[in-house]
Amino acid sequence: MKDWTSLMSIRSSSSHASRGHTCGELCSSHVDEEVTLCGWIQYLRQDLFVILRDFSGLVQILIPQDESKSELKNAFLGLTVESVIMVKGRVRCRPEGQENKKMSTGEIEVCAESMEVLNTCRKLPFEIKEFVKKSEALRMQYRYLDLRSPRMQYNLRLRSQMVMKMREYLCNLHRFVDVETPTLFKRTPGGAKEFVVPSGDPGKFYSLPQSPQQFKQLLMVAGIDRYFQLARCYRDEGSKPDRQPEFTQVDIEISFVDQAGVMSLIEGLVHYSWPEDKGQINVPFPSMTYEEAIRDYGVDKPDTRFGMKLVDVTTAFQESQIEFIKDALLKPSGCIQAICVPEGTVRTESGDSHSYVPTPQLNLQRSQCSLISKQINLFKQLFLMAQANAGDLIFITAGPRENVVCRPLLGKLRLQCVELLESYGVPVRDPSVFHFLWVVDFPLFLPKEDNPEMLEAAHHPFTAPVPEDAHLLYTQPRKVRGQHYDLVLNGCEVGGGSIRIHNASQQLYVLDTILKEDPSLLSHLLEALDSGAPPHGGIALGLDRLVSIIVGAPSIRDIIAFPKSFRGHDLMSRAPDFVSEEDLKPYHISVVWPSADIEGQQDNSV
Amino acid sequence: MKDWTSLMSIRSSSSHASRGHTCGELCSSHVDEEVTLCGWIQYLRQDLFVILRDFSGLVQILIPQDESKSELKNAFLGLTVESVIMVKGRVRCRPEGQENKKMSTGEIEVCAESMEVLNTCRKLPFEIKEFVKKSEALRMQYRYLDLRSPRMQYNLRLRSQMVMKMREYLCNLHRFVDVETPTLFKRTPGGAKEFVVPSGDPGKFYSLPQSPQQFKQLLMVAGIDRYFQLARCYRDEGSKPDRQPEFTQVDIEISFVDQAGVMSLIEGLVHYSWPEDKGQINVPFPSMTYEEAIRDYGVDKPDTRFGMKLVDVTTAFQESQIEFIKDALLKPSGCIQAICVPEGTVRTESGDSHSYVPTPQLNLQRSQCSLISKQINLFKQLFLMAQANAGDLIFITAGPRENVVCRPLLGKLRLQCVELLESYGVPVRDPSVFHFLWVVDFPLFLPKEDNPEMLEAAHHPFTAPVPEDAHLLYTQPRKVRGQHYDLVLNGCEVGGGSIRIHNASQQLYVLDTILKEDPSLLSHLLEALDSGAPPHGGIALGLDRLVSIIVGAPSIRDIIAFPKSFRGHDLMSRAPDFVSEEDLKPYHISVVWPSADIEGQQDNSV
Repeated sequence: MKDWTSLMSIRSSSSHASRGHTCGELCSSHVDEEVTLCGWIQYLRQDLFVILRDFSGLVQILIPQDESKSELKNAFLGLTVESVIMVKGRVRCRPEGQENKKMSTGEIEVCAESMEVLNTCRKLPFEIKEFVKKSEALRMQYRYLDLRSPRMQYNLRLRSQMVMKMREYLCNLHRFVDVETPTLFKRTPGGAKEFVVPSGDPGKFYSLPQSPQQFKQLLMVAGIDRYFQLARCYRDEGSKPDRQPEFTQVDIEISFVDQAGVMSLIEGLVHYSWPEDKGQINVPFPSMTYEEAIRDYGVDKPDTRFGMKLVDVTTAFQESQIEFIKDALLKPSGCIQAICVPEGTVRTESGDSHSYVPTPQLNLQRSQCSLISKQINLFKQLFLMAQANAGDLIFITAGPRENVVCRPLLGKLRLQCVELLESYGVPVRDPSVFHFLWVVDFPLFLPKEDNPEMLEAAHHPFTAPVPEDAHLLYTQPRKVRGQHYDLVLNGCEVGGGSIRIHNASQQLYVLDTILKEDPSLLSHLLEALDSGAPPHGGIALGLDRLVSIIVGAPSIRDIIAFPKSFRGHDLMSRAPDFVSEEDLKPYHISVVWPSADIEGQQDNSV
Repeated sequence: MKDWTSLMSIRSSSSHASRGHTCGELCSSHVDEEVTLCGWIQYLRQDLFVILRDFSGLVQILIPQDESKSELKNAFLGLTVESVIMVKGRVRCRPEGQENKKMSTGEIEVCAESMEVLNTCRKLPFEIKEFVKKSEALRMQYRYLDLRSPRMQYNLRLRSQMVMKMREYLCNLHRFVDVETPTLFKRTPGGAKEFVVPSGDPGKFYSLPQSPQQFKQLLMVAGIDRYFQLARCYRDEGSKPDRQPEFTQVDIEISFVDQAGVMSLIEGLVHYSWPEDKGQINVPFPSMTYEEAIRDYGVDKPDTRFGMKLVDVTTAFQESQIEFIKDALLKPSGCIQAICVPEGTVRTESGDSHSYVPTPQLNLQRSQCSLISKQINLFKQLFLMAQANAGDLIFITAGPRENVVCRPLLGKLRLQCVELLESYGVPVRDPSVFHFLWVVDFPLFLPKEDNPEMLEAAHHPFTAPVPEDAHLLYTQPRKVRGQHYDLVLNGCEVGGGSIRIHNASQQLYVLDTILKEDPSLLSHLLEALDSGAPPHGGIALGLDRLVSIIVGAPSIRDIIAFPKSFRGHDLMSRAPDFVSEEDLKPYHISVVWPSADIEGQQDNSV
């Protein structure tokens, strides 16, 4: 249980309200003061005390015991847990020896003089204090009770505070303009994950955009110069874990800026809005190229809180007769990669060394992975190269250097090993440490997964090439690096942005010639670029993800007030819900029920 | 053209950017400084000067004329209007006599030393400076150019500043928590104006809510205590003028508060966030009951910037033989109401007295309205009661006192008269004056228009009754006043709120017994009220409307970056747009084309 009150002053928390003080703010300096408190009954103790709770904490109320106040006493004793009351009383020091050091208000108590029951709590599917033991489904169904827990109060209040600091930084310190952009928009090319919203025009739909990308660029063309918005974004991904159909990004765009300018702006933003109780963070953040990240960590968002980097151990295996290694090295640019898990073979209390080996959970695909700890004498050179000690565990993969499997596989193994080690109680990563990292110099295009002859935008089609690679657009587009930058925190991508193409003909070339997309869908953007578009770039930070990492929440659902379930359902109100055909008529749509759908398909196949 | 820079310091506007200064900030204190500017070509003058523009204003750039710099000169002369350039140069005083007092940078100019063309403007459907003369459709289609106009820059930047001040007031000064609530929600009972969003579950739809009403109340039950949000709201109203399918409200809810508490909070909020260049406003705002408003102004949102109040002149007509008056007074509670338009019969330069009479534009319905200025001798008493002078114009209506037509008709006439007078150049309302007003003590229920035996909620079913009227809920619900308050600015409703029902059984009684609505649709809210809901209340301010009145914009479209047209279309991107049947499949819907629809109706009728 965290004490979020340390984050903020609670002066003014009682302005315009019936209460005069909050429960949690009372201390020995209030002794002898007459106070009015409003809050919830946490529990009754020994018919003597009521523990009253509000957002700021708990305070002990002394129930009067003398005969003359028996009516008041009975009123207190009739209270149910979580009922809401207003108490007037006088603050006094607790009798010597009865102080509670664990409670922030533990030096005092309030002698009740009058009490009014504001509301009675009748239904309660679980106790508030034992909350975390309840199933997530129950927490979601009674979200308004779940949010009463100190942890959820802390999470939502910290989020609010951080967002406010971000706004101060952008709006007051750097003169950004907060502009709201529409969420009822047009379907973007390839926007398969966009929710549609039927309009009153037959057959025409709005689309809920995945980001305000087009609008932020149009605002630059409009001379808004420095734009930001806490933007609600939408993505229909069905039931992906820890994704939400609606989420929030800190959306930023700036004119007359280069990559270094955006990066230092964001470093300042994160530094300024960083919660005080989470320690200091250092700026500038370290930076790594995409190539370095893949080479050393097998992933484009490395968790740099621990080592176990990938090592190229090809030379150690030049003479090897092991079949899969020989095969790999015969192919052009074949290589052998390794990671070394320190003390990876040491037994823990709960099992033998084999417990650590997560291989069965992985799809090995075209590369292969092998536990070779028992062949240690054969690989002295390998051990030297991997800087391994006795008891360490080494994983190797073999395959072509450019192979998208060989290094990423070790990258995944590296993360699974550390999770496994930590689940056995071996501390690897310090949970109080925050490692920010920029990853830069991404390729601008990647081969399409289903058709490697074709290219697709590595991030989005508006990213500008690195200036020294720009000429390669027209000759070797696969070699072009983009002016794209990702912000990584503890191995999670928490932001991504780029310098954008501001030249209409270059944008048209990318869309039309390289990506083979229909440029007419973006004709308004192309026209805008031809109307005096300034050079510009920006970034979007995933606010939900960022805050969840900062508070150490296991899921982004823990920092969203009313999240949807895995399947996109609101378990409290039971959304989505059926709508009558009558109500759908104005939108010129009707439901195609699955059975009817199958019949339709049969008709087609006949 | 307003000078928005007076609103804010422009320090920090160039942090993290290529430019060193903004155009508009340069003045004589910068003389001899080397500056780097980025901006748009406003125009070229006499082959000698370029006027450069950025968001902060204009500055004159001197094109070098000596032979040695002919290349630079030619580069300048080749520039098209609205192209984007970066200029380095030295600031100097303009030669004596050449200062431009109308220009904030008119004392200086910048001698260009180098220039880089950042982007060329090729297409330009209209000149930026003459913008207001273009049709609204053209402005919407090229919104990114429209936004370059000084007025739109002012509007969007002022909106951003005001919102930031509101956040400071709520979050920093009064410890409100900024909580985001879902926009993919469940259809609310009677939510006919809610957009639907098909989900992946066949037949099930999300709904885009008209306000976060349920969530804000649930947050109170959750102990969040003081909630606010700049909430995006949705309303499908087809093509109502000056309504937008998505709009923003400043959404506030607070626990342990009464009506006076919410009202003083909002007064403080408006006062704190009020733009400096709009003069002082006084708090507290005056307050008026619903009954007084209807009685004196014939409307529940009176424009109190001018008089011409309604007067009850029944006694003057007791003996009248005029047919429609006699008829009206014979009926129970029949009355005669009047307004007096000062100098309403005085000729203006553009026409005779009859020009003022807007009667033909009104639907008189069951009451009647008559121009009686020519019968002045017959109505001496009327003139006394209406405090009329020679040359004034008096309108009267006759009908029952409770009649929803009799007074509202005069209320409309009052507004039409003032608009007509102003269109003739007679100043009645000072455009720089802002009259805030609270309207309180609304009836809690109103008879349904289509079935007056039934009641509907005057605002929404969650409003609590005025405490002294609460017992009437169960006996004479039509007499119950609600704890509802509307905030009116210059005759427009800019906010509305209420103290809510926090007692589950009272809420059930209102929904079920009085309003005859299905309470099962709100079972989660009723359950929440039974789980320790604190007393609470709140308000929502219509941000778009509020800002548009403050900046004097003729439409809310002028303070929204990318508004929709009357018909809900985005004319720039052409949203909404067609979506293929293939893309609709995952949502189990298909389009019902109007022709098929008509056939279907015919089938039904057969």
